[in-house]
Amino acid sequence: MFPFKKKGGLAGVVAGQTAICNIGHDGSSLNYRGYNIEDLIKYSSFEETAYLLIFGSLPNQAQAINLQQDLIKYQAIPQPICNILEQLPASSAPMDILRTSCSALGSIEPENSTHNQQQIALSLINYFSSCLFYWYNFATTKTRINVCTQQKTVAGHLLALLQQKIPNPEQVKDLDQSLILYAEHEFNASTFAARVCVSTGTDFYSPITAAIATLSGPLHGGANEAAIKLIKQFATPDEAEKAILKMLQQKQLIMGFGHRVYTISDPRSQFVKAIAGKVQSAEGKKLYDIAQRIESVMWREKKLFPNLDFYSSLVYDQMGFNSSVFTALFTIARVPGWSAHIMEQRANNKLIRPDAEYIGPGRQKFIPIGERNA
Amino acid sequence: MFPFKKKGGLAGVVAGQTAICNIGHDGSSLNYRGYNIEDLIKYSSFEETAYLLIFGSLPNQAQAINLQQDLIKYQAIPQPICNILEQLPASSAPMDILRTSCSALGSIEPENSTHNQQQIALSLINYFSSCLFYWYNFATTKTRINVCTQQKTVAGHLLALLQQKIPNPEQVKDLDQSLILYAEHEFNASTFAARVCVSTGTDFYSPITAAIATLSGPLHGGANEAAIKLIKQFATPDEAEKAILKMLQQKQLIMGFGHRVYTISDPRSQFVKAIAGKVQSAEGKKLYDIAQRIESVMWREKKLFPNLDFYSSLVYDQMGFNSSVFTALFTIARVPGWSAHIMEQRANNKLIRPDAEYIGPGRQKFIPIGERNA
Repeated sequence: MFPFKKKGGLAGVVAGQTAICNIGHDGSSLNYRGYNIEDLIKYSSFEETAYLLIFGSLPNQAQAINLQQDLIKYQAIPQPICNILEQLPASSAPMDILRTSCSALGSIEPENSTHNQQQIALSLINYFSSCLFYWYNFATTKTRINVCTQQKTVAGHLLALLQQKIPNPEQVKDLDQSLILYAEHEFNASTFAARVCVSTGTDFYSPITAAIATLSGPLHGGANEAAIKLIKQFATPDEAEKAILKMLQQKQLIMGFGHRVYTISDPRSQFVKAIAGKVQSAEGKKLYDIAQRIESVMWREKKLFPNLDFYSSLVYDQMGFNSSVFTALFTIARVPGWSAHIMEQRANNKLIRPDAEYIGPGRQKFIPIGERNA
Repeated sequence: MFPFKKKGGLAGVVAGQTAICNIGHDGSSLNYRGYNIEDLIKYSSFEETAYLLIFGSLPNQAQAINLQQDLIKYQAIPQPICNILEQLPASSAPMDILRTSCSALGSIEPENSTHNQQQIALSLINYFSSCLFYWYNFATTKTRINVCTQQKTVAGHLLALLQQKIPNPEQVKDLDQSLILYAEHEFNASTFAARVCVSTGTDFYSPITAAIATLSGPLHGGANEAAIKLIKQFATPDEAEKAILKMLQQKQLIMGFGHRVYTISDPRSQFVKAIAGKVQSAEGKKLYDIAQRIESVMWREKKLFPNLDFYSSLVYDQMGFNSSVFTALFTIARVPGWSAHIMEQRANNKLIRPDAEYIGPGRQKFIPIGERNA
C-alpha cells in the first residue's frame, strides 16, 4: 500500500550535497535555507519565499518592490505561446500544457545574458498560471481571456484567473500559505530529474521541463488529485472508514499518506489541515469530516500520517479549482525550489551518470531474418 | 580537460538493474540485448535494431514488414504539430524543437489503449525527423515541405528531408550504421533522467521529453557539434597539433574524447571512423586528416581515445547536415534505447528518489522586512 520501500530507487543513497533544504532529519522538520516553514507561513509570503530560494536570502524592501513589479510583468505571455496553446486540445492534461509551454518558452525567450536564470525562474511562476488558464478558457469556450490580472501576488493572480474576478483576500492568503508549503522539498524525484538534466550543461528551460514531466506522475505530484477523488467517493465518515478498512485489507494504495523521507509526520500537513479546517460550507465540512476520519483510520491501522497532498486537496477543491489542475498548482509553487537546485547544480557541476547492474542475456548469435522463427 | 571524474555525480554507484545494454565490462565492449554492435552493424539495420530494443527480440519477416509500414505511416505529423512548429522562431535550437514537439504530441496523440507505448516509441522516431525539417524549412524560407518522403528506412527519410531528393543508397547505409551505434547506451544521463521521470508513473511522452532536455547539454549530446567546430578551426594537421597541445597545456576541455564508462576505447568509434574514412572530397579528406592527427595527439599526450561523437561529426558534416542538428540526429537514433529503458522501469517500478547531504545554514531567525539590510 505504501509505495516507497526503503531499498531500491536510490532510497537512502546520498546523490549529492545541498544547502537549500534541510528535510526530516528528526523525522518531521523542514527548513528552506535555514528558515523553518512555520516562520515562513506565519511571517512571510510566497513571493518572499520564492526570492529566498532563487536569490539565496530574503528580500529587503527595495528588492521586494522590484520583485512585485517583475512578477506583474510576467503575467503577460508572449503571443506565439498563446498561438501554441490554442493548438492543444481540451482533452490535454494540464501538466502537459505546462510542459509544452515551458519547452516552447525556451525557444521564444531563450536564456541569455539579458534574460538570465533568475529572471527565467521568476517569469515561469506567473507565466505558468497564465498559460494554464489561457489554454483552459480557449479549449473549453474558445474565449481568449486577458491573463494580465494586475494582482500583486502569485496566489491572487491564480485565483483571479480561476474566478475571473478580484479574489477574496482571505482565500489569497490561504492559497499563498499552501504555495509556501509546496515551494521546495530537497531531492524529490522532479528536483532530482532537474539536477540530472542540467548536469549536462543544458539551458534553464530544459531541467524545468524535465521536472514538470516528472512531477506529472501519480506517485509524485498526482497524489493531491487522487486524494480528493478518494475523499469524494464517500457520503459519510462511517462509510469512508468501512471502505478504507476494506482497501487496506486488499492491500490497495491509499494516496496522500506516508512519505519516503518523513518517518513520524509530514511537518507541512498540520498547516494545510488548519487551512482546510476553516471551511464554512456544509459540503466542505462534510468532506473535512470524512478526511479526518480517513486520517485517524490510517494512523490507527497502519501508523501512516497524511502528507501535504491530502489536506491540500480539500483546500484547492474548496477554492473552486478542478482536481485536474491540482498538480499544476504544485508545479507553480515548486518553480522556485527547482530553480534553486538547478542553480546550485550549475555552480558546482559534475555530470550525473550512475552505473547499472547488467542482468540481461549473454552474447547472442546473430540469426539472419529469413531463419528467425515466424 | 576530461569532464568525468570518478567520484561524485553518482559515478560508480549502481542505480538499478537492466537487461537492455551490457556496456564496457571489459573496458571496451557494447551489446544490445546480448547482440554485439559489430554484428548489428554488419548484418542488421537501424529498424531491426530499434525493434530489438523496443520489442525485446529481432523481428521475423512478417514483423519487419509491419514495422516498415508503421514507420512510413509515422512520417506524417499531425496538423496541430505543424501549426505549433510554425510558431517557433528560426533562432530556436533544434533540440528545443524536438523537446516541444514531443511534449505537444503528448497532448495531440496521448498514450492510451489504442496508442500504446511501443507504438509511441516507433512513431517518435520518424515524427522527430519530420518535425525537425518541417520547422527548419518553415522558419528559414516560410515553405511548408511535404514530410512524407515514402522512404523505407529511417536514414533514408532523414536524408530525403535534408536533401529534398531521393538519397544516395550508400549514404543511407552509412547513416543507418551510425544510427545503430547511437541507439542505446545504458544509464547515460538522458536515459537515467527518463527512468527517474517515468518512475513517478507518468505518461510515455514525459520521460522522452525529459531525455531530450537532458541530451541537449554540451557534456552529453552536444559533443558531436563541438567536435566538428574544433576540427574545422584548423587548416592543416600540423596547425591542429600545435593548437591542441596549447589547449591541453591550458587545461581546456577537448570535446569528443574519453568516456566515463569506457577505460580503453569507445567500441563504437572504430566503426564510425571507418565510415568517415570513405570520404572522397578534398575538403572531406583534409578534415579527416586533421581529425586523425587530433586523435593521435590526444592518445600520445593524455591516453584519451575518441568517443562516438568525434568521427560521427565528420560523417554528418560530409552528408550535408548542419552541425546544429547533430544532436537531433543522436536523439532520433536514441529513441529506441530510451523507450526500452522506460518500459523496463515501468515493468518493475520503484520511485527513484535519492537522499541529499545538507551543507547549508543552521536555523535562521526570521527578521521582518523593515529590519533587513538595505
